[in-house]
Amino acid sequence: MISIPVLTLKRLPQYLELLYGFEQEGQDTISATRLAELTGVHMTQVRKDIALTGVVGIPKVGHKIKDLIESIESCLNWKDLSSAFLVGVGRLGSSLLGYSELKRKGLNIIAGFDSDPAVAGTLVDGVIIHSMDKFADLCRRMKVHIGILTVPADQAQATAELMVESGILAIWNFTSALLQLDEKIIVEDMDMSASLAVLSRRLSEKYESDSEPKRKTKNYKNKIDQEKQ
Amino acid sequence: MISIPVLTLKRLPQYLELLYGFEQEGQDTISATRLAELTGVHMTQVRKDIALTGVVGIPKVGHKIKDLIESIESCLNWKDLSSAFLVGVGRLGSSLLGYSELKRKGLNIIAGFDSDPAVAGTLVDGVIIHSMDKFADLCRRMKVHIGILTVPADQAQATAELMVESGILAIWNFTSALLQLDEKIIVEDMDMSASLAVLSRRLSEKYESDSEPKRKTKNYKNKIDQEKQ
Repeated sequence: MISIPVLTLKRLPQYLELLYGFEQEGQDTISATRLAELTGVHMTQVRKDIALTGVVGIPKVGHKIKDLIESIESCLNWKDLSSAFLVGVGRLGSSLLGYSELKRKGLNIIAGFDSDPAVAGTLVDGVIIHSMDKFADLCRRMKVHIGILTVPADQAQATAELMVESGILAIWNFTSALLQLDEKIIVEDMDMSASLAVLSRRLSEKYESDSEPKRKTKNYKNKIDQEKQ
Repeated sequence: MISIPVLTLKRLPQYLELLYGFEQEGQDTISATRLAELTGVHMTQVRKDIALTGVVGIPKVGHKIKDLIESIESCLNWKDLSSAFLVGVGRLGSSLLGYSELKRKGLNIIAGFDSDPAVAGTLVDGVIIHSMDKFADLCRRMKVHIGILTVPADQAQATAELMVESGILAIWNFTSALLQLDEKIIVEDMDMSASLAVLSRRLSEKYESDSEPKRKTKNYKNKIDQEKQ
């Protein structure tokens, strides 16, 4: 299986959102040019991204929307439901347990775990919550390989280590902790702090530059920086 | 104000997490080398990141932890509380309203808004929820410039447009929708789909390559790809 670059993987769901919309409207085909216009991604890049999914287009027409959806979904492994365990049934954890969108995207949270004994045995949105001491055993017996980490940051490392010892191969990390694990473990950080950092700084850069005469130069520099990333 | 590259901005909160920990343990100084070891970021890059915050180190010692924390916090604008409005008080919205971490990082959600009239007038974690028709007026009167978007994806574009018309300058977008707005508006996407796409694909790449003999080459290629990003 070819390795697809991170940035392509992050753009594919954006294309999918648009394609689902067009499919609902009854549209049949779409061109890479149109996708480029709508997403703001350069056309050459859109073509490259699509080519990586393995789909073949129709000359001068573009792509059958149905084919393109199938190709991207299978590329992202969103057609097969993968089972996942979630650890930390606080606010964020609970909101993920009830987030039906995840199932549509191939992720099926089959159980939740929490260190609070009062929560064990309850159901959150139809998902059973167990106490933490059952994690290792259930993980092995049910052959679950994806762990979702929604514990407080100071418990993140210890919980992640327990996950890995129990057979978890990929961790979706919603905490602000920086996990130190064997490098064969896949860790995908969903860190709000990083996102908030970009938002706050960009806003203050803009505010300050608005009151300065050199605004144009700064915006230009900003653009270059972003393109470099 | 200098424009700081996106990737530096995303790393700064990671350094901060570590620094808070060391400060609590009573440690006084830290070297860039040590930060590099702990984060897995290259030392040269750590030095560059730190330099961008404007702090000056002590030769052969490193940095005073207190100074470094202050410098990063002020760089990210996390010391001044910025007011924000949140639109869409569903599960995710509610969990953000109760997420105290945000206040520590400079973001103060002062009101929530929802299209459901039944929610209007209620309090969620001490934050008042208004009906949507009050948004424009309150936004102007309270001079709020940050909007947090937690509505369903199909309402995202219309809601974002309303936000912008009402004076919002920066949108923290938690939906999977691709917002099309005036380019002077700052949009920071916090898209779970993109993150899940990377996780799912990496896991299936690994699974497949585990049963293949060519694993080493693939992992190597994978690494190069990630470094390119």
